[in-house]
Amino acid sequence: MFNESTSSEIETIMQEAWQAFHVYRKFSLKQRAAFMKAIAVELENCGDALIQTAMSETNLPEARLRGERSRTIFQLNSYAEACEKADWLAACIDTAIPDKVPPKPDIRKMLVPIGPVVVFGASNFPFAYSTAGGDTASAFAAGCPVIVKAHPAHAETSEIVANAILTAATTCNMPKGIFAHVHGAGFEVGKALVTHPHTKAVGFTGSYTGGKQLFDWGNQRKDPIPVFAEMGSVNPVFLMPEKLSAGSGGTASANEIATMYAGSITLGVGQFCTNPGIIIGIEGEALQTFVHDLGKAIQQITPAAMLHDGIAAAYKKNKDNALLQEDVHLVAESELWQSSETLPKLAALPTLATATGQAFLNNPVLHQEVFGPYSIIIRCKDMNEMIEVAKKLEGQLTSTLMATENDIKDNDALVEAVKNICGRFILNSVPTGVEVCLSMQHGGPFPASTDARFGSVGADGIKRFARPIAFQNWSNDLLPAELQDENPLGIWRTVNNELTKAVVPNK
Amino acid sequence: MFNESTSSEIETIMQEAWQAFHVYRKFSLKQRAAFMKAIAVELENCGDALIQTAMSETNLPEARLRGERSRTIFQLNSYAEACEKADWLAACIDTAIPDKVPPKPDIRKMLVPIGPVVVFGASNFPFAYSTAGGDTASAFAAGCPVIVKAHPAHAETSEIVANAILTAATTCNMPKGIFAHVHGAGFEVGKALVTHPHTKAVGFTGSYTGGKQLFDWGNQRKDPIPVFAEMGSVNPVFLMPEKLSAGSGGTASANEIATMYAGSITLGVGQFCTNPGIIIGIEGEALQTFVHDLGKAIQQITPAAMLHDGIAAAYKKNKDNALLQEDVHLVAESELWQSSETLPKLAALPTLATATGQAFLNNPVLHQEVFGPYSIIIRCKDMNEMIEVAKKLEGQLTSTLMATENDIKDNDALVEAVKNICGRFILNSVPTGVEVCLSMQHGGPFPASTDARFGSVGADGIKRFARPIAFQNWSNDLLPAELQDENPLGIWRTVNNELTKAVVPNK
Repeated sequence: MFNESTSSEIETIMQEAWQAFHVYRKFSLKQRAAFMKAIAVELENCGDALIQTAMSETNLPEARLRGERSRTIFQLNSYAEACEKADWLAACIDTAIPDKVPPKPDIRKMLVPIGPVVVFGASNFPFAYSTAGGDTASAFAAGCPVIVKAHPAHAETSEIVANAILTAATTCNMPKGIFAHVHGAGFEVGKALVTHPHTKAVGFTGSYTGGKQLFDWGNQRKDPIPVFAEMGSVNPVFLMPEKLSAGSGGTASANEIATMYAGSITLGVGQFCTNPGIIIGIEGEALQTFVHDLGKAIQQITPAAMLHDGIAAAYKKNKDNALLQEDVHLVAESELWQSSETLPKLAALPTLATATGQAFLNNPVLHQEVFGPYSIIIRCKDMNEMIEVAKKLEGQLTSTLMATENDIKDNDALVEAVKNICGRFILNSVPTGVEVCLSMQHGGPFPASTDARFGSVGADGIKRFARPIAFQNWSNDLLPAELQDENPLGIWRTVNNELTKAVVPNK
Repeated sequence: MFNESTSSEIETIMQEAWQAFHVYRKFSLKQRAAFMKAIAVELENCGDALIQTAMSETNLPEARLRGERSRTIFQLNSYAEACEKADWLAACIDTAIPDKVPPKPDIRKMLVPIGPVVVFGASNFPFAYSTAGGDTASAFAAGCPVIVKAHPAHAETSEIVANAILTAATTCNMPKGIFAHVHGAGFEVGKALVTHPHTKAVGFTGSYTGGKQLFDWGNQRKDPIPVFAEMGSVNPVFLMPEKLSAGSGGTASANEIATMYAGSITLGVGQFCTNPGIIIGIEGEALQTFVHDLGKAIQQITPAAMLHDGIAAAYKKNKDNALLQEDVHLVAESELWQSSETLPKLAALPTLATATGQAFLNNPVLHQEVFGPYSIIIRCKDMNEMIEVAKKLEGQLTSTLMATENDIKDNDALVEAVKNICGRFILNSVPTGVEVCLSMQHGGPFPASTDARFGSVGADGIKRFARPIAFQNWSNDLLPAELQDENPLGIWRTVNNELTKAVVPNK
């Protein structure tokens, strides 16, 4: 157990972060990238001890944690490369036109860091969305110091990773205050961090309740700050009629999709933001087959332990509450529950329910996320009702269509309604599995995240923590290297409205 | 006088905007651009009648209004070109790697419109930041319908421009609801618009009180929406010691700067967001010369009428209040006030005051904007005090240094402190005059604007009203043209981390 950080400790930490900001933001992109790569090396150097600690704190299996550490190392390295490559900086130059009336001055713009960033670790990704995760990497790339509040469910793991970051900071001669790590199980520490005058942005991954609270604190400040909170969603999956009834006897596809989704619903004990919580189909033989086959598959999934007591208790409560709703019926739950004699602690029972489209439209409880290996199949009476369901859904991280080309071309109203609510639009696949690449969008219309214009996976996430500044009428040698005529960093820039790596002409 | 829009009218308007959104967002970039260009043509077609109406409503002189209309036409055309060019769309493609473990899917990302945008017209720019101004042009380019609330001080002008937009909408076969124009002098209409569920973003230019209120309404919604409010600032100007004392006898430069700033302070009766309200120097002979010369120049500026009663009354009240503060001294005011027999109605008296750095540091009233032809010179005892003043200032649209190369190289702490608070950083020029180009940043740390990560001038302003969506695993012919392999629009895209206009390889 770690002591809660006190207000005076937080004050000291924020003062040091503010001092560090003024030093670090002048460091070159190369220096920032080297720091991030050094963190990746230190994370690897933590070796088996880190994995063992994380296993004991999170109940996550060794292979998953090793994979997640590799992913975190990959993130640090790939955001470091993106940082140095500087496409995200959006360097832009308009040269002077002295004989225009009035004369046009020389103006050059680029992104600069916003200031100290507070990051809240996520419970379900102890590495990739926590202490040295995507938010921290994005903030370092942007040129911002980072203050991480450890997730109390894996505080020990977080502490080890924090020490790895501090070691890298020393190795790379980073200023004191570039990184700080605080603990706090209640809301006081979080509130003190978000409301501190030197905090200039916040990154969060977790529940709606937590994220919305941080967002409100951030906006209620005398000087509001951006709070990017990724708050999960139900990730609806739409089973389109032609697709669902394809294959031999009109059921082969239904069976195949059922198998695919049994895996996606229960992957990682359902503890992913992108877990498919609602599957929507249209009544008929193919949907009956799908429900039957998915139920059968769910029965055969072994229950596994959830991350911690709170999540396991919430899963049971929310699942039971969903099943108590009028016109909701249990389809299946894991049958390996009763028979297994060695049920892990905090085990979650994989569960599948069903309800009609009408029941869904009438009852907002069914729209809510049940975080864990649970999904509900919504049986619509026709395509019009499916469209109504799509329009009733709130903002989502992902939406998925299981569809043929005809399904898509014949049902434009549905496709557009589904597209309108999501950040990532998937065709004939599963929403679980978030590839780390520039094209990824992890974020979506509220309440999936607090600002649909940004995302938290991929190097574009850096932009959350940077702001544009325009230099007007500066002489070449006083400008930052990114904006000098000679383009000494060799980066992409928009010069007089054209993207180029060339030097600035006609000078 | 126009009738206030009623709640039922607003409800109808927002329903129509929502319907139009689903049609307009599927229009091609070319179609959007054509619509914007048609608005520009219609604005020109409004001819002299529009200028006459604007003159009678705003007291702005004919030449200024003709120039502002030209600027508005330029904005519409240049954002239309930017829209079609699609750099802002940030199209991004990562192709599949099926033999990666786990397999990497094909993912392609671009910006899509956020939804209906409510725009509040500014009083001080009846064309360029009002009905068909930068916010409206940005929203149309992004693919969003627009609802403009006319500024009550130029409702007639706004109505003429609104009709020009509606004519262009008809010509271009835009959907009903693509644009609506409402009136309302109180807060009710504005609140109804910002809090309506179909409103997805807000653009505003005006006072802190107005902008902050809209921001709060937007964030207090069940589903918060982005509100970009540009709320003005005091645009500090720092007179650096070597620069100020340069020239013959150590005063030539001081005189030159004084002449330049007399013009900037009183340009447009001081009614610009970028008006230099605070000028900071270090005590000494050169600063005395500057204060003297600027005072002399201010005395020779003819008072002119402000935009409307409210602004003229607020100017008098805020100026008088500033002059009543302890240790604030009047340097000069226009001497053409008494002597002129034909003083225009609502005339504002150009005024220059001064105070010590200590007085400034102790009194937040002196940090506030006095909207109009007023400026205060802050006399610091040394560079350290000047740095303290810089650190005490809130977020600004612009900051200006009057400095030699030595001044900048020798005073890094000051330069960094000043840079940290502004969106545009000007060297040896004046802040008034906002060039419309991609490199411009018009926005800054709070309270200059509500989100320093965006700006309201230049085509990057389009990004305020768009959000990324990632398409995963879609076949080529089902993707939007912007993301298809063949790059049919010939736009810049980031393909597997490299910017290119080429087709997607290896398919």
